[in-house]
Amino acid sequence: MDVDIGNALGTTPGVTTGVLDRLDDRVADAHETITDGMANDAFGYAALNLPETADPDAIRSAVDRYDDPEAVLTVGIGGSALGAATLANALDSEVDAYFLDNVDPDQARRLLAELPLSETVVNVVSNSGTTAETLANFLVVREAMDRADVDWTDRTFVTTGGEGNLRRLAEKHDLPALDVPAGVPGRFSVLSTVGLAVAALQGHDVEAILRGGADGRENLSGSLYDSPAYAYGAVSYALARRGATTNAMMPYAESLETFAEWFAQLWAESLGKDGVGQTPVRALGATDQHSQLQLYRAGPREKLVTLLRPRERADVSIPETDLEGLSYLGGSSLGELLDAEFEATEASLAAAERPNVRIEIDRVDERSLGELLYGMEAACVLYGELDGVETFTQPAVEWGKKAARGLLGGGEFEEAEAVSDKRELVVSGGR
Amino acid sequence: MDVDIGNALGTTPGVTTGVLDRLDDRVADAHETITDGMANDAFGYAALNLPETADPDAIRSAVDRYDDPEAVLTVGIGGSALGAATLANALDSEVDAYFLDNVDPDQARRLLAELPLSETVVNVVSNSGTTAETLANFLVVREAMDRADVDWTDRTFVTTGGEGNLRRLAEKHDLPALDVPAGVPGRFSVLSTVGLAVAALQGHDVEAILRGGADGRENLSGSLYDSPAYAYGAVSYALARRGATTNAMMPYAESLETFAEWFAQLWAESLGKDGVGQTPVRALGATDQHSQLQLYRAGPREKLVTLLRPRERADVSIPETDLEGLSYLGGSSLGELLDAEFEATEASLAAAERPNVRIEIDRVDERSLGELLYGMEAACVLYGELDGVETFTQPAVEWGKKAARGLLGGGEFEEAEAVSDKRELVVSGGR
Repeated sequence: MDVDIGNALGTTPGVTTGVLDRLDDRVADAHETITDGMANDAFGYAALNLPETADPDAIRSAVDRYDDPEAVLTVGIGGSALGAATLANALDSEVDAYFLDNVDPDQARRLLAELPLSETVVNVVSNSGTTAETLANFLVVREAMDRADVDWTDRTFVTTGGEGNLRRLAEKHDLPALDVPAGVPGRFSVLSTVGLAVAALQGHDVEAILRGGADGRENLSGSLYDSPAYAYGAVSYALARRGATTNAMMPYAESLETFAEWFAQLWAESLGKDGVGQTPVRALGATDQHSQLQLYRAGPREKLVTLLRPRERADVSIPETDLEGLSYLGGSSLGELLDAEFEATEASLAAAERPNVRIEIDRVDERSLGELLYGMEAACVLYGELDGVETFTQPAVEWGKKAARGLLGGGEFEEAEAVSDKRELVVSGGR
Repeated sequence: MDVDIGNALGTTPGVTTGVLDRLDDRVADAHETITDGMANDAFGYAALNLPETADPDAIRSAVDRYDDPEAVLTVGIGGSALGAATLANALDSEVDAYFLDNVDPDQARRLLAELPLSETVVNVVSNSGTTAETLANFLVVREAMDRADVDWTDRTFVTTGGEGNLRRLAEKHDLPALDVPAGVPGRFSVLSTVGLAVAALQGHDVEAILRGGADGRENLSGSLYDSPAYAYGAVSYALARRGATTNAMMPYAESLETFAEWFAQLWAESLGKDGVGQTPVRALGATDQHSQLQLYRAGPREKLVTLLRPRERADVSIPETDLEGLSYLGGSSLGELLDAEFEATEASLAAAERPNVRIEIDRVDERSLGELLYGMEAACVLYGELDGVETFTQPAVEWGKKAARGLLGGGEFEEAEAVSDKRELVVSGGR
């Protein structure tokens, strides 16, 4: 993975080499904190050890019993789904991967109508084992399997922590159970059982993913000039402090669209606290040039645009044509067109003095994905150190969970009462 | 459509009733400009007349010749695809809708492998008739149909303006051609041939969509207190001026996920200019509560959160269970859980004094969608009037288009030369 921060110099907002040099001293300190945390397997930092501590054999022994499934359905939400979905949507496989990651009756109904339940493996994922959305969905899926005369205990495994409803379910019904590693928050768990079980079921090279992560780990160092992950984290932080409160993550590859979702969770939930943080915006090149680029180039100067692309891709030629005005496309390829658009967008932003960063990976394969995912996690941890926030917690999520639980009659919570205090000013369309 | 702006009062940033009352005078003036524009079918404003001017019969007569297709493939990008995709992904149909809306070789290859080409109708959409991405994709699709021994001229229709390559193609091969109405920018074209042809092919009630749009049109008035669309546009504008430079559009319905994409284009491309605008953030409830909510509640105070839901949905019961700790869910439903999460999130943001607006539609059906889409367009036009921008143009997109075209050898453009001037500061992962 290469990170090119040249287009963050001299832009507005922007950095200078002087800013970067001074920041680099703080990067050295932060790196010490990070390596200490890693050495102690401290909460959160433990995630950065996963390339070494994850156990591909344990993952495979849990999933190898499922002989040639047609599909795998992951029931999970947030960090329990996004890592696996990122890998699944990036890499081709004969085994289809589905995700039930909301509590939308429409989504559940459509999915259950589509899935070949007797040929589907179900993976229920919740670290706490108590996530209401995930367990409610699981109850719906289990009933559908019962109705379809499929023995759900034969087709279901769980990925969970040491306690909770899900662990008890696995024990009661003797289900295969993968352990969520201790000290790894959901949004940092892609390189663990949480992200890799589905990849193994889909026949992807789990060792290569971890090898990519290990490459990323080796590239961490005490200077942003030597570590692409830190270069990205440090520049993002410095730009945010100078007004770039949003960060548009714009991969130029459809297969990396879910990666942008994964990044958005990582960035938002880790760094958005105490009134600081950087709002991640999920974008997609080249499509969003026809949607978002006007804003990125000419809107408020509160934005970093991160342009991500693979250096190699299997290409598709554009046929020659006799259509007037299109002859310049014939003989070219979709990939060349996409690369031209990438470079044009980058130059267009630079010409308007809008900061942008280029990230390149070799290609969309297991190893490069492992390196990319690890690199973004390390970038995020560094950013959190520089900004002095608690990167690995998510305290603001709890309030809403309690309110929802109270509303559903799952206990007495004062938060639920606030819902009825809502201030209304309704403008109605009537009819 | 109802818009509840109560939770934008007294928040930070926020408005007061005094602010709204003063703003309402400007809304009256803006409404006069808008109605004048509509009366003259002026550029852009003409889009707000589409509920009356669109011709469902012309659309149906173009597409009715395709007898019982399995699928429809739209080749288009930006506004030429997003409106149709919004309707297609919101409404169930026996006819599958696909979109080739990027120039990614991966996407093209996967799609062409999946599509039953002999049973697919291809809809090529470009207002100018010259969009490079769309025409390159079309050439690839046409070649695939040739190879599959499918007569592409039998299965292809175009939606385009009066001139350009696409119009000439239609004339040369006697293809059915739908006209893009004059004066309607792509991002405002969902209620025209551009958005409705696919809906007609999928068997949706096109008249009902337009009736919903007409409902929205009737609800426009000289006061934000009487018009839900203007209430939304005015409050978004007032909040943006007070620091809410981002707007997270968060539907609580999977079927409206693409609507958030459509909204993002409308908002970004119309309002993001002259250094102002509001960055649209695409979110999804309840999933993003486990991803973005931490940031929305505790990050920088630069955000409006728009919570959107249907009041009615076909529900799915959650089965009773003997699992300890989950008994509170049994007997409830996924829809009830989703609504509880919606209200909990809304209250959670309000308790943290973060502005949020609630939009409710009756249900996800043709009429309500028409009203919602029209309402957001009118909100956007009003916002543009209040902010004094050229809502209907997108000048900043042109630069990049020229650069890309120059890079591909499609002519001499000085913009292309800027690409080679790129300032580099590469931190490499090596290996």
